[in-house]
Amino acid sequence: MTRKILMHVGPETIDYDVLLGGIKGDVGFTSKEFVDALSYSLKFLRKLMGVSEKYQPFIIPGGGTSAMESVTSLLRKGDKVLVVSNGVFGNRWIDIFSRYPVTVKSIRAKAGYYIKPEEVEEEIKREHYNLVAMTHVETSTGVKEPIQEVIKRIRDYADLIVVDGVASVGGEEVKAEDWKADVFLTASQKAIGTPPGAGLLVLSENAINKLSDESVAGYYLNLKNWLGVMQSMEKSKASYFSTLPVHLILMIRKAFELIEAEGIENRIKRHEIVSSAVRKGIEALGLEIVAKTPEAYSNTVTGVMLKKANPNDVLSQSLAEGIELAPGVHPDLAGKYFRIGHMGWVNVNDVISTIAVIERVLSRLGEPINFGEGVKAVQEYLNSGISISSSNIAP
Amino acid sequence: MTRKILMHVGPETIDYDVLLGGIKGDVGFTSKEFVDALSYSLKFLRKLMGVSEKYQPFIIPGGGTSAMESVTSLLRKGDKVLVVSNGVFGNRWIDIFSRYPVTVKSIRAKAGYYIKPEEVEEEIKREHYNLVAMTHVETSTGVKEPIQEVIKRIRDYADLIVVDGVASVGGEEVKAEDWKADVFLTASQKAIGTPPGAGLLVLSENAINKLSDESVAGYYLNLKNWLGVMQSMEKSKASYFSTLPVHLILMIRKAFELIEAEGIENRIKRHEIVSSAVRKGIEALGLEIVAKTPEAYSNTVTGVMLKKANPNDVLSQSLAEGIELAPGVHPDLAGKYFRIGHMGWVNVNDVISTIAVIERVLSRLGEPINFGEGVKAVQEYLNSGISISSSNIAP
Amino acid sequence: MTRKILMHVGPETIDYDVLLGGIKGDVGFTSKEFVDALSYSLKFLRKLMGVSEKYQPFIIPGGGTSAMESVTSLLRKGDKVLVVSNGVFGNRWIDIFSRYPVTVKSIRAKAGYYIKPEEVEEEIKREHYNLVAMTHVETSTGVKEPIQEVIKRIRDYADLIVVDGVASVGGEEVKAEDWKADVFLTASQKAIGTPPGAGLLVLSENAINKLSDESVAGYYLNLKNWLGVMQSMEKSKASYFSTLPVHLILMIRKAFELIEAEGIENRIKRHEIVSSAVRKGIEALGLEIVAKTPEAYSNTVTGVMLKKANPNDVLSQSLAEGIELAPGVHPDLAGKYFRIGHMGWVNVNDVISTIAVIERVLSRLGEPINFGEGVKAVQEYLNSGISISSSNIAP
Amino acid sequence: MTRKILMHVGPETIDYDVLLGGIKGDVGFTSKEFVDALSYSLKFLRKLMGVSEKYQPFIIPGGGTSAMESVTSLLRKGDKVLVVSNGVFGNRWIDIFSRYPVTVKSIRAKAGYYIKPEEVEEEIKREHYNLVAMTHVETSTGVKEPIQEVIKRIRDYADLIVVDGVASVGGEEVKAEDWKADVFLTASQKAIGTPPGAGLLVLSENAINKLSDESVAGYYLNLKNWLGVMQSMEKSKASYFSTLPVHLILMIRKAFELIEAEGIENRIKRHEIVSSAVRKGIEALGLEIVAKTPEAYSNTVTGVMLKKANPNDVLSQSLAEGIELAPGVHPDLAGKYFRIGHMGWVNVNDVISTIAVIERVLSRLGEPINFGEGVKAVQEYLNSGISISSSNIAP
Repeated sequence: MTRKILMHVGPETIDYDVLLGGIKGDVGFTSKEFVDALSYSLKFLRKLMGVSEKYQPFIIPGGGTSAMESVTSLLRKGDKVLVVSNGVFGNRWIDIFSRYPVTVKSIRAKAGYYIKPEEVEEEIKREHYNLVAMTHVETSTGVKEPIQEVIKRIRDYADLIVVDGVASVGGEEVKAEDWKADVFLTASQKAIGTPPGAGLLVLSENAINKLSDESVAGYYLNLKNWLGVMQSMEKSKASYFSTLPVHLILMIRKAFELIEAEGIENRIKRHEIVSSAVRKGIEALGLEIVAKTPEAYSNTVTGVMLKKANPNDVLSQSLAEGIELAPGVHPDLAGKYFRIGHMGWVNVNDVISTIAVIERVLSRLGEPINFGEGVKAVQEYLNSGISISSSNIAP
Repeated sequence: MTRKILMHVGPETIDYDVLLGGIKGDVGFTSKEFVDALSYSLKFLRKLMGVSEKYQPFIIPGGGTSAMESVTSLLRKGDKVLVVSNGVFGNRWIDIFSRYPVTVKSIRAKAGYYIKPEEVEEEIKREHYNLVAMTHVETSTGVKEPIQEVIKRIRDYADLIVVDGVASVGGEEVKAEDWKADVFLTASQKAIGTPPGAGLLVLSENAINKLSDESVAGYYLNLKNWLGVMQSMEKSKASYFSTLPVHLILMIRKAFELIEAEGIENRIKRHEIVSSAVRKGIEALGLEIVAKTPEAYSNTVTGVMLKKANPNDVLSQSLAEGIELAPGVHPDLAGKYFRIGHMGWVNVNDVISTIAVIERVLSRLGEPINFGEGVKAVQEYLNSGISISSSNIAP
Repeated sequence: MTRKILMHVGPETIDYDVLLGGIKGDVGFTSKEFVDALSYSLKFLRKLMGVSEKYQPFIIPGGGTSAMESVTSLLRKGDKVLVVSNGVFGNRWIDIFSRYPVTVKSIRAKAGYYIKPEEVEEEIKREHYNLVAMTHVETSTGVKEPIQEVIKRIRDYADLIVVDGVASVGGEEVKAEDWKADVFLTASQKAIGTPPGAGLLVLSENAINKLSDESVAGYYLNLKNWLGVMQSMEKSKASYFSTLPVHLILMIRKAFELIEAEGIENRIKRHEIVSSAVRKGIEALGLEIVAKTPEAYSNTVTGVMLKKANPNDVLSQSLAEGIELAPGVHPDLAGKYFRIGHMGWVNVNDVISTIAVIERVLSRLGEPINFGEGVKAVQEYLNSGISISSSNIAP
Repeated sequence: MTRKILMHVGPETIDYDVLLGGIKGDVGFTSKEFVDALSYSLKFLRKLMGVSEKYQPFIIPGGGTSAMESVTSLLRKGDKVLVVSNGVFGNRWIDIFSRYPVTVKSIRAKAGYYIKPEEVEEEIKREHYNLVAMTHVETSTGVKEPIQEVIKRIRDYADLIVVDGVASVGGEEVKAEDWKADVFLTASQKAIGTPPGAGLLVLSENAINKLSDESVAGYYLNLKNWLGVMQSMEKSKASYFSTLPVHLILMIRKAFELIEAEGIENRIKRHEIVSSAVRKGIEALGLEIVAKTPEAYSNTVTGVMLKKANPNDVLSQSLAEGIELAPGVHPDLAGKYFRIGHMGWVNVNDVISTIAVIERVLSRLGEPINFGEGVKAVQEYLNSGISISSSNIAP
């Protein structure tokens, strides 16, 4: 099908201006055009993360997982790490740290729930941790952790606080400095709206000071090796450690220019409206959302529970009607749900199409739903006086 | 706004694979890659027009109007021409012929109506005409003329029968040879789904035989000058009269490949479903369609009458919500309607988004409509057992 | 072959930034993005033609030939036209005007020669002409006419003076207003460096005043029909006569931005250096240039005479080595020459590659040449203190 | 400057068909289009590496360095590694392994030299190594190691033999299976000719059997985590460990299709001709090549020693004339040389332009060279009966 809408969890539908921004046949890793693009992107990354020049931005090859693993650059042998996990990608922190000579403890939530801040507080007061890692929005379920509150409660106790913002940065409010996170990271293919291939991080001064040859980190994902490159490139001076994804970074620059033109606040407002519309539609159909409580809803991913239909059938039939959705991946809910991603360049027109297709497909598959009510609820929400046109607009 | 949906009357939303098909920095007008693309396109044009090798295909620079004017290549000084006009583009035939030393007579319909076949029959029996020109779908109103019936009644009386299929070819059933049209023409930016810049025609043997140095035609749009080029290019042999739009023709080739993969019949079926869905939505809102009778509805353009709202406001507010519609241009209905184009790569997801936006915008503008009923009607229609997924699919 | 160099006579190698500038799937003929692009392009066209706001710019569908034929909008029945022709495209003026009820007289040069200004002066003093048409650079041979001198001698006698600058605008100095031409025209695929599909003209006030319903012109190429559209679009207000090549005009805008960044004078200087380099190479090989005298050399096209080799073999073998050249098309020199186009985005690296390939190919084909001397002469010329780097640079 | 030629060491000039192959706004990491592209690419990677289905191909995020580090997936704590290093990237093996609990020993060559096979043999007979790592072509100097001979001598003694083919695969003959290498790896931005962002490897059965949870490897670059994904994807079944660079892999597929059309042998022959031409030119100028002996010359990178001129000046002035070269990076030759990359889509026209620019720039900078002799030598070489046109051709 031509012109399908990709409502997956990243990459999602990418604006073609972003993609075309990387089509340069003659730009090398020391070319001025690349160096300037990276310089701009590093500077803009600070704004996106809500940090001042006290934080050091990094754009490194890979994605969310490599950015997460690069945090080992801050750890030494024997360090203690606490992982606050709400699902598959929270558990990924555990899997990563388990490959290194550090001690890992975790607090795990049931599927659909987040860890209550007081639980983390309790644990951190019980024992000293060199690093606490958490996930802002858990991509596997769409559950959002109240990280601002969590950090507030543990800030005085933990040496380093690291947030996986893979499914939040660009779509949720992020104020890494105000909230006092040491590391905030994301990946290029999520709410930033570019192809996969890069991890993006900011590190506080405190975190930068932890970089050392004695860290447990390997070589390629060792931020100490990238630090000088990032500092030099930001000053528009070519530098090399290992070849960066030149063309992807040209695309990131273009995406950042579009985000700057839209306005970061407007962009987040757009994600709020879009996600609200999605949930209005899903709830009106009589379906349950994976995230159990409203404060756990995210702007970027919505998990949808099914009573009867097979999620694989929902996915394949939706695809045949032009909407590509994401499968559910949380093992505890295997075969019981699917996900709708709504990140990046998504707009309310995508929502109405998506809910309409889901309605028709579920109806055909015999799922007990209130046919017609989903689209109606979306439409009524969009007509309820919210300022769609302004929030909806990108340049 | 990024990712808007262009529901204008041509160009409409163009698939990016089509656009990218023309991005070649080193292809000249005698390059093999271009010659092969034109050869393929000419051959496929016959299929699209429903003609055998007895017809000669042409792809010439310009668009619908230049293709129409090229028909003067078939006329000699003093010839008599009858124009069957349902609106602005029917009248364009008159404006064109009026610049040449031929006699023009016209039968004109009121806005929203088509000319009854018997009216044309009557006129053709009254007087001999060298050429009868008509419009299959009138872009200014969306009114479709029953050309098969018209031609049937006049075939034995008129020397040449010419059909402007600008708003039909690729979206409506066209069987130029079975229906016995001598010339059937279209433009690249309409239901074919490529950028504007070319007119596409097929000529019967009868029409080809009329080409002569004695025609009233000028030079550039004189099909006699292009005949040898087209014949040569179809055989993959470079030839020159005047430089063709090389890159656009590479895009046309790509579009034709996609149409071939979709299947011409499937494509027309898709246009039928899409246009039915649009009309279901509009009617359920309580709005009137410009075309007065169901048999005049077209697969490609729908005019929508407004009772109260200013069409310019509808257009600007819809654009702000990501749907770009077309203004009404028929002078008799000035300020009273707008148009929805649904051609080319359009799908049912576009329809649901479009009707939803129109509902919301009209509601805001105080137009008396049945809010919510438009989207509901579309959704019910799409759920009524029609095979969307297969008709909806392009490769 | 990937990455071949297109040294044809238009299109030539096109910069990919230009091509990518037109890749927009959602821009229609009334979309703001298009209207703004056309507005900018019309304004920049004046600069490129060397005219003030007294001249009206036009960008119309088609190309060089359609732009030439649009000049019939300035003629009335019975008018007298004088054509100054140096070859195939000079003769095209005659062929065009011969289709209209005007009287055409021509002065024709032998292949390789230009018409001496005094010959034109003599004729114009002998008889009154409503319009004199000439060709700045004759694409078929690469011969340049000294139009400034010609116009100077005839300005007081001819009502309208029209210059076909198809192979000059963007590559040769053009000062249409200072030189007192009434119409100066070009095509998109030549030295402007965009794909074919548009003709570009400027008309003096005198010429604009000649537009009337009584002209001999047809409909589509009748500038009277386009005048209001161009005036409105320049003011960034959408207007319609017939659909313009939207995506091509987006590309033209991008090309004009690049030309503005390079500087028009720098661009012409670059064409001078490139063409001088080509001729140094050809002459050092011992080959003759079609243009007989240095003052007839052009910045954009060089015809090369062959003594023995078959031009078709030269073309096919050069293509196999990555250089696509143009065939000779002047009937008086049929089979005796080929052409090198050097327009648009061409640079000195293209020249050295082209001359090297020609040397090797001619050597293989047994043409008596001074092998090695061509490339040597180019290299020595480029090393002779000319400022390549600055002239060579585009942004 | 528009249309510069990127003669850097990767990325080099990339064919636009390759870049455009990745422009898809709606392809996600489980989309059929992506899965099929990866499946094809994995299969073709075997051909490029010269291995049968006994070897397992991997395409992972990152580049050369991440592919190198992924080899730690084959090592256990306490293993002994021997590194055969000819320069910066040979030393990189040492730097990588030094971050892990393994013992590293190295044999290092002087700049410009390669390690003699007998030296490696001697060392391997002295002590048992679990893994021997070497570099096929050392990017920092252009020196090629005779790896076939090295492997032959050590195969019976070393458990695992790993070759960094970053600067060879796609440009040099590679027969990993015949030569009995266990791992052969490369990066996307080198002779394959796509943007940076992926490492590509093949592993022998022997190597695959070493993958285990007990390896010293981390998480993201741990090939055990990627194994199932690669096996599944090759069978066109979506699978996930961490998001792959979707759009880059679409580009890799396109590049591989072009390589398949060209023929791998033809492609290598083209690299041979191009590199021979470069060296003919450099030597005729009287300059010394960094690689000291002809058997050490590579098809992909040539280092050029300077006597007097500052390499930074050579680079900046060459760039101003449209050729972007690479700086020298071997610390022992700091400030004394520059590099010419000739990989991927490079052709003989690029060589003649490059040598011409180098001649002119060096002449201006006062470097003692034989002006004119460089270009002459290239041209004579290309005219000496080698079959350029066939080797030069890609589809």
